Formats: sequence, C-alpha cells, structure tokens
Amino acid sequence: MTVDAAPIDAQTFEKYKPIIEKYNAQRVEDMKSYDPDFYAKCIEVIPSDEVLDTEPIDARKFLVELLSEKDLKIVNGYTIDDLISKQLDGSLTAVEIANAFIKSSIIAQLATNCVMQFLIPYALEKAKQLDAYLKENGELVGPMHGIPISLKEHLDFKDKVTSAGYVALLEAVAPKHALTVDIFEKQGAIYHIRTTQPQSIMQMDTWNVISGRTRNALSTKLSPGGSSGGESAAVAMHASIMGVGTDIGGSIRTPSAFGNLYGLRPTAKRASLLNCTPGTGGQESVVATIGPIARSIDELNYYMEHYLNDGKPWEYDPSTIPIPWKKASLPEKIRIGVLNTDNLVTPYPAILRGLQTVANKLKKHSDVFEIVDLAPYWFTEEDMKKIYNTNMVLYTIDGNKAQMSLLEKSGEPILPLTQHYFNFGGGNALSAYENRYHNSVRDEYQLKIFEKFFQKDGDGLGLDFILSPTYLGPGEIPKHCVYWGYTSFWNLFDYPNVIFPTGVTHDPELDVKVDTESLKSNDYEKMVWFDKSGSLKYDANEFVNGPVALQLTGKRYDDESVVAAVKRINEVLNVERR
Amino acid sequence: MTVDAAPIDAQTFEKYKPIIEKYNAQRVEDMKSYDPDFYAKCIEVIPSDEVLDTEPIDARKFLVELLSEKDLKIVNGYTIDDLISKQLDGSLTAVEIANAFIKSSIIAQLATNCVMQFLIPYALEKAKQLDAYLKENGELVGPMHGIPISLKEHLDFKDKVTSAGYVALLEAVAPKHALTVDIFEKQGAIYHIRTTQPQSIMQMDTWNVISGRTRNALSTKLSPGGSSGGESAAVAMHASIMGVGTDIGGSIRTPSAFGNLYGLRPTAKRASLLNCTPGTGGQESVVATIGPIARSIDELNYYMEHYLNDGKPWEYDPSTIPIPWKKASLPEKIRIGVLNTDNLVTPYPAILRGLQTVANKLKKHSDVFEIVDLAPYWFTEEDMKKIYNTNMVLYTIDGNKAQMSLLEKSGEPILPLTQHYFNFGGGNALSAYENRYHNSVRDEYQLKIFEKFFQKDGDGLGLDFILSPTYLGPGEIPKHCVYWGYTSFWNLFDYPNVIFPTGVTHDPELDVKVDTESLKSNDYEKMVWFDKSGSLKYDANEFVNGPVALQLTGKRYDDESVVAAVKRINEVLNVERR
Repeated sequence: MTVDAAPIDAQTFEKYKPIIEKYNAQRVEDMKSYDPDFYAKCIEVIPSDEVLDTEPIDARKFLVELLSEKDLKIVNGYTIDDLISKQLDGSLTAVEIANAFIKSSIIAQLATNCVMQFLIPYALEKAKQLDAYLKENGELVGPMHGIPISLKEHLDFKDKVTSAGYVALLEAVAPKHALTVDIFEKQGAIYHIRTTQPQSIMQMDTWNVISGRTRNALSTKLSPGGSSGGESAAVAMHASIMGVGTDIGGSIRTPSAFGNLYGLRPTAKRASLLNCTPGTGGQESVVATIGPIARSIDELNYYMEHYLNDGKPWEYDPSTIPIPWKKASLPEKIRIGVLNTDNLVTPYPAILRGLQTVANKLKKHSDVFEIVDLAPYWFTEEDMKKIYNTNMVLYTIDGNKAQMSLLEKSGEPILPLTQHYFNFGGGNALSAYENRYHNSVRDEYQLKIFEKFFQKDGDGLGLDFILSPTYLGPGEIPKHCVYWGYTSFWNLFDYPNVIFPTGVTHDPELDVKVDTESLKSNDYEKMVWFDKSGSLKYDANEFVNGPVALQLTGKRYDDESVVAAVKRINEVLNVERR
Repeated sequence: MTVDAAPIDAQTFEKYKPIIEKYNAQRVEDMKSYDPDFYAKCIEVIPSDEVLDTEPIDARKFLVELLSEKDLKIVNGYTIDDLISKQLDGSLTAVEIANAFIKSSIIAQLATNCVMQFLIPYALEKAKQLDAYLKENGELVGPMHGIPISLKEHLDFKDKVTSAGYVALLEAVAPKHALTVDIFEKQGAIYHIRTTQPQSIMQMDTWNVISGRTRNALSTKLSPGGSSGGESAAVAMHASIMGVGTDIGGSIRTPSAFGNLYGLRPTAKRASLLNCTPGTGGQESVVATIGPIARSIDELNYYMEHYLNDGKPWEYDPSTIPIPWKKASLPEKIRIGVLNTDNLVTPYPAILRGLQTVANKLKKHSDVFEIVDLAPYWFTEEDMKKIYNTNMVLYTIDGNKAQMSLLEKSGEPILPLTQHYFNFGGGNALSAYENRYHNSVRDEYQLKIFEKFFQKDGDGLGLDFILSPTYLGPGEIPKHCVYWGYTSFWNLFDYPNVIFPTGVTHDPELDVKVDTESLKSNDYEKMVWFDKSGSLKYDANEFVNGPVALQLTGKRYDDESVVAAVKRINEVLNVERR
C-alpha cells in the first residue's frame, strides 16, 4: 500500500507497524482458514492490486466466476423477503445463507478491499443457532432472521477492536455492541463483516493507513466514496444484503451513489449512534446520522421500519427521538424541484444528463409528478459560498484537536484527504462565541430553505421534494473527492435524503461536452474542474462504468415520504435490483 | 425604582432615560384611558409600592375588593371549558371576557408590576370580531375562542417593541408575531398583556431596568421567580387564564412554583421559539423551551393539545419536531422516585415537608403509586458538582458577549442577578473545543440518568417519574434566587417537567428546624444557607404565604405522560384550582 505522506512521527509509527501487520494478517488468515481451496481459487481469478487499481473493472463479474449457481442466487437473486420466506418454508437455512455471503464477502474483499474485519465464526455460530431456533419453535427470531447485514467499522462490536480509521486505536477493544448492532442482532441478523472507513472517518473517499484503499465495485480504479466506502463496495459486491453506514457530510450518500445503490440519510436523531467510535464528542453543529445502504428501495424501507418500530432505539438511548416509522402518505400530485447545479460547483456532464433524463421521464407522468426547475429560485453563488463556508468551518471549529491527538499518538502519516478536511475551516480553532455565530447562520438558512422551498402557504414553492446531484461526478478518482457540497449542505440543515440509481451510466462518448465559459470562477469550482496550471482536469475516459445515482430530499422528520417517493420514481425509471 | 448598581456608562444611559420614561408612561396611560374611574379606585385600594415591597400581602384579595361578582367569576370561577361553553350558549361574550381580564390585569399590574405592555385596544377589537364571527357562523373560530392568554414579552408581537429586558432594545419593533403567538391568535385567543421578564432574561427573579421589580402575587414582598415572573404574577392574579413562558434554566418552573401554579417545561423542540427575541443565537448546549403556566393541570393539557395538534408548529418552523400531543398511557402502577435533596443544596424545611406530605399521601394509594426513595441512588455530591459546573459553564461559554454588547449599548446598570449569571462560568469565554468537551459531559450524564433511573430492562430503577423540589425554598427573597440547580439540571439533560401545587404552604412555626450540622460544605450550599460571616441566613418568617409546588419529571418526548401523572397525583392531593 502506498501512502502519499510521511509519518508525523516516524519513530513512533515504526512501533505501530507490527500491530498493523498483525491486524491485517488476521484478515487474510480469516479468509484462508474458512476455506483454503475457495480462497486459492479466488486469488487465481481476481487480478492483482495493480491491475485492479488501474483498470475500470466491474468486480461483480468475479462473483459469477467464483460462486456456485445456488450461492449466486442467495447473494443477489433473492431479496430479504425471499430469504425470509425460503427459511420459513425450509428451502434455505441460515447456515446456507451465511456461507454464501461469507464467500461473496471474501471475493469482495479481494477485489475491492472493503473488509476491515471478518466475523466468520461468529456469523456461522449465529446461523446455526437461528436454524435450531426455527426448527424448534417453528417461527423466526425476528424480522432479520438469517439476514446478513454488513457493519461499517464505526459501529462498536463487543470484544472487537474499533480503529475508527486510526492506527492508534488498533488495540482498543469495545466493551459492548453499538445499539444499532444490538437491535438487529436481537432481530436475527447475521454479522460476518465489518467494513472499511477512511482515516479519521472524515474523507469522501475510503483510505486509511491500516488497510489501505478501498475500491469501487463497478470500476475498481475509482473511489467507492466515503466514509462508508466499505459498505458501498460490500453491498454492491453482494457481500451483504444491506449495510449500515453513517453520514455527517455525505458518508452514506456518496458511497451509495458511487456503488449505484440506495442509501438513506435519516433526519438526525431518528436513529441511534450510541456506542459508535468515535461518538459525537459533543459536536452538535452538524449532527452525525446512521442509516442503511441497500440494493432496493423496499429493503431500505424494511430496514427502517424494523429498526424503529421493533428496535425502538429510544428505549435505550435518550438522545434518540421516538418517532416510529410511519406509513407515508404522498400527495396525489408529487411536486419535485429539480436542482441541476448548486450554483457553486457545476456537476459533470453525466450527472446533468442523469438529472435531465429523470426529469423528462417524470414529466411524462404528469398525473403523478409535477416538476419545477429550481434554477430561478435556488440560492445565489454568494449565498452558497456563505453556506459552504459555514458548513466547513463548523466541521473543524475545534481546530481538529480531537483527531490530531489520535494521529499524533501513533505518528501515522496524515493522508491527503484527511489533510484536505483539516483545512476546511482554515485549520483555525475558534471560540464558542464564533461557534454560536456560525450555528445561527445555519439556523437562519435552515428556516429559509423551509420557507422558500417546502412551505405550502406563505411565499414558499410548496415543494414536496428536491431532486439534486449526490455528487458532482459519476464516481470519482481516488483522492479527488474534495467537494462535499451536494451532500454536506443537507447535513448542515438536516433534511433527510434518499439516494437512488437512475439507470444512467457515464458514457465516455456522450459525456464529453463541457462549457468551460459558463463555469464560475469561485475557488471550489476551480479546485474541482481545473488543475493548478488552469487546464481542464475533467476527462470523460476516467469515469467508465461510473453510475449516476441522484439524491431526493424531503422535509425534516418525514423520511418515510422520501423513501415512498423514491419508490414511485423507481416505478417510472424501472431500474432493476442488481 | 431602586437599582443596586451604577450604570456601565452614565452618560449614554442618560440619553436612554427619556425612552424608558416614555415607555413606562404609555403603560400607565393604557390603564387610565381604559377606564379612568376603575383606575382611580384601584389606586385607592392597592397599597403603595413601599408597602407591597415590604409586607407579605396576598394580592389576590384586591381582586375581590375591586371586581364585580360577575367579573370575579369570569377571571377565576370559570375554566377554559366553561368560558368556551358559555360563549357557545350565549351566556357570555368574548367582549365581556376580555373586559373582565383587562380589569384583573390592571389590578395585577398595580399590585405586582407584572405587565410590560398592555394591548387593550387590540384585545377589545379582537373580542368584538370573535363575537361577530360566532354570531354569524354559529361556531367558534377555534379552541382558544375568547380565551385571554398572557404572553411573556420574550415572544415577539407584530408592530410592538420587544425589549427582552434590555434598555437598548426599547425601540426595537418586531416585524411579526412569534409563531406561538400566531398559532393561538388563529385559534381565537385574546392578547391583552405582555408580561415582564428580567434584564437579559437570565435571572431567576424578575427585575429589569425598564419596569423595575415584579412582585409575587401570594406574598408581594417575595420574588415571583424568573425569568417568566411576569407570567407567574399575571396567572396567579387571574390577569389571564393562562400564560406562555420560556425556560432555559427554570424560567417557566420557578415562577410556576412561586405562584403556586401548574407549569410545563416541554422537551426541547416540541414547541417553537421562532421569532422570540432574543432567539437561540446558535446556543444549543442548553436548549431553550417554551410552554404554558396555568391554574389547573387540565388547562395545561388543553394548551399543549391544541398548540401541537391544531397549531402544528412544525409546518412553519423546521427546527420543531413533529410529535403530536398523544393520549398518554400511564402504567397500571406508577413508579415514582422521590428526590429530597440533589446532594448539592439542601432545600428549606417547607420543601422537605411538602415532599414528605406528597410521598405519604401517594403511598396510601399503593394500588396506583409506588414510591422509591432516591437517596441511595442519586448522584454523589462530587458528581453533582461536576454536573452543575458543566451546566453553568455552558450557559456563559461565549463570555456573555452577546448580552454585554446590548448592555453596553445603552450603558444601563448591570443588575446584581444579571451579574451573578454572568459569573456562572467564571466569566470566561471558552473555545469551541471546550464547548464540545462540556457537551460531551452533558451527553454522558444524559445517558446515565436514563440508564440509572428510567430504563426498564438492564440495571435501571425502571422509574416512570422523578419527584423533586422545583426550587430550594417556598418562594424566595428578591435578589436571593442564586441557585438554579433543581431546575437547570433538567434543562441540561432535557427531560420534561411539570410543576404542580401540593396544597402545602410554608408555615413559619413549623418550618424552622434546620440541622446545620448536616449541611454540606460545598460553595453552592454555603452561598444559599449562610451569609458571608458564616451565620445562618435562613429565616422562616421571610416565607409567609410561600407555596410548596413540586416538580415531576418524565422521559424525554413523553411530556404527555408527565401531565397525565400530575393529574393522577392531583386527584390524591385534592388541590383546588384557584
């Protein structure tokens, strides 16, 4: 693994290297000891890291090459509903399901490096217990009986290390499960993998000094997004049926989009981050959230319904708001505002084409959808600069002290995108007074968004939803994920979003035309579109296989409606689960 | 009016004096011009400020002396339900109701100085419209049709000044109503008075440089509490049927207790503070709340039910959580933990007697109530010091900059209790990093409280509610309200509370015994119980007529159950509305 930066403290870091090696060796050992023959076959079929890192390989093809027909069906042919009913009618066991997904997760790991930690014996033991329970009682343990759910490493797992992407934490064993882990565990979920996240968890890519870089499943040379990039690769590779991610700036959504998946960033505090590492650390200016990444909107809904209505996280975590997952009631006519650009950074051609494609298809169903172009109404470039600045300053307003102390402890190198993040607020530690000021700017715009776009009476546009890019490009080149604005905007103001595939894929022939004249001259757009010499950086050939998945946003606490609306949109787009 | 402090800037303050005079003269003019004869009679009957300030006069007697039998019935004989049904059956008009309450509010003002601003022509005009509407349509405008609700001045009122207790804001005209004002206005409420609050709104007394000191209605020499002290006096004086207060450290609850009233501090963000002055200013470490003060638990419930379920504040304010007011479902056996002392400041004898009286009465109904003494389980003195320190530091962590700039603008004197508040965090402006640290201490204890006391499974006590003092004494001597801990504890951790009268009143003969040996030696207890020379300050004769109203606390977002439980407790205590 190459790291583009020198250690902060080479001598100290040297002492940690054996710990890193031991940690990584365990992962390899876990794969090998599960089934040495299968592992050997995987090594044979899957190309070298070098090839994977430089070619736009759709790694899902390795599943077809390496899995039996039956296992292939289990890991992708069946939805959760299928897996549940097949266990009930005896045509599948939890052990069979677990084994199939363990195999796909080994393939996923070797192709995308998305696994931080395997939990194979744990998963197989649990599967056995589930089968025994079903046999004895004739009923399921719960709604997740035998369902393999992958877990971002951010969530503590009892008796396992949570590194949080820091070398210094490689021996920090968690005393208990994160509440979310507990909830699905009780409902019968199978946990077989904990997935990768970037150093400090504050990158929009997935790269840490312990396990290295995670690849995109659809084009291995591209980034899987971040910080839940391990989940993106795992779910896209059918290494789990769905996964749990966290999101404070786009960390569920960008990976969902880059994996052409469905992802939900719920309104803050509807789901619980209790016993994740790190916790919130008292940071509440931009509130972290936790939510699902899945391969269909129905499974996303299934996750939330059972997480909230059966799991009742508020009975364990007083910071969680007790709003059950309601039955959404959509209006007869769904009014959607379409935002092509945030007026700060123009998206790449494929994204604009995707937005237009979706808008045009929805317009054809004018009995159900009403489309409003937001160009005349959206915030100006000046407003957006102020908003994005507020956003960035609030992330790093503590001067990155908490993160730096962890990095300094091991002396590990600060990776380029970690450093990029540290510079967000200019690297300055500000006062509580300034923190309050920036919060109040946030609150002012949170209200403006509501009044301008969502409010039904008054001068508002009365939208039900806003459709916008998830990210400026259809995937991204590793280490190039520098502009968070399309997702972090909604973290700052805490409106819930669902990411969904559009069926549109980047086309290196079609998506070439760039009107450089119309590009704005602000620093963010410059940073994305041009290199330091001022030449256009964008190269359509880089994004082969890059998916266009978009973001639908609704009113706060009405997450259910956003999910329901995406289901309706999906019926029009007719995108198949894969 | 005497002020115990010199102006910050005498020269600047001099320029503001005519503005203050004009503002106060308007209030007198409003009373006079409404009914010069009635006003003259009031002046004749109600003693001088000097007498009121030095004697424990129960000012409610002036109502009996000054109001007609019919008006007396209107302002106190009837509940909201009665007023509504009497308007419907034609036996009362909104104009009659308005006039009765305008008269009682003039009496209240002259006895307690609780009115900041009269809205008499506004109220009468509204009442006329309501009567016309009912006559024409045969139905009410809404659930508050003809119901006089008093408003803490904190809530903006369209085209009127909101001073927020600052001289510098005496010409700051609000462009629109606070959302809460709008909500009840649409439902037919009559607004005739805006009530007093202390300088900076951050005192547990009600004293500002504009209107001076507000008195306690039950003993005019005592403090009405603060910061919603104007509401305490107004509602206790039957100047309104109920009032709207705000609470960030006890500002609804202490005044409710001192007025022997019912008060609710809802879980934060269930009700909206949109367009109050000042707003939150981005301060979210301890979150301000808004809620009712009333003379019965049913009226408290009525307020919340219609505010939330009909008013739907979340349709206008995206920071409000859309949880409707549910029908509470109490357990068959209600498990209440009783906290006699917070282990930091021992309450005065009357409070301890009140707690014991209530606990004993509830114990007699062991089929309904189960009482748990919290003494063996509550946080230690050390823990409580840490908690209270966190609490105080978080209030003033900006170094009071926002408040100081407003005080400096007019040069007005800093009142002693304002200064006391400014010193909470040692007067230091801390960093955002430190702010996060203190937040994380808060979050840690918020969880501990839940796990220790409320959680049903695990090692928790499985309580439904906690009964504790509202304040350390049965009322307080003006300027002596220095310890906020009994209420601010629950602001810090945001568990909802209802204040309710117990039927117990301070008895200068009974409530004398103080075991000074057992008093702890921490600074807070010293500050409250002893003077600077170390002699006991407590004098039972000071608290004649002082009521004992206690605080019941429940789980977050389950405000409904707290209200429902107080109703059940009330059935046992049999305290009459008055």
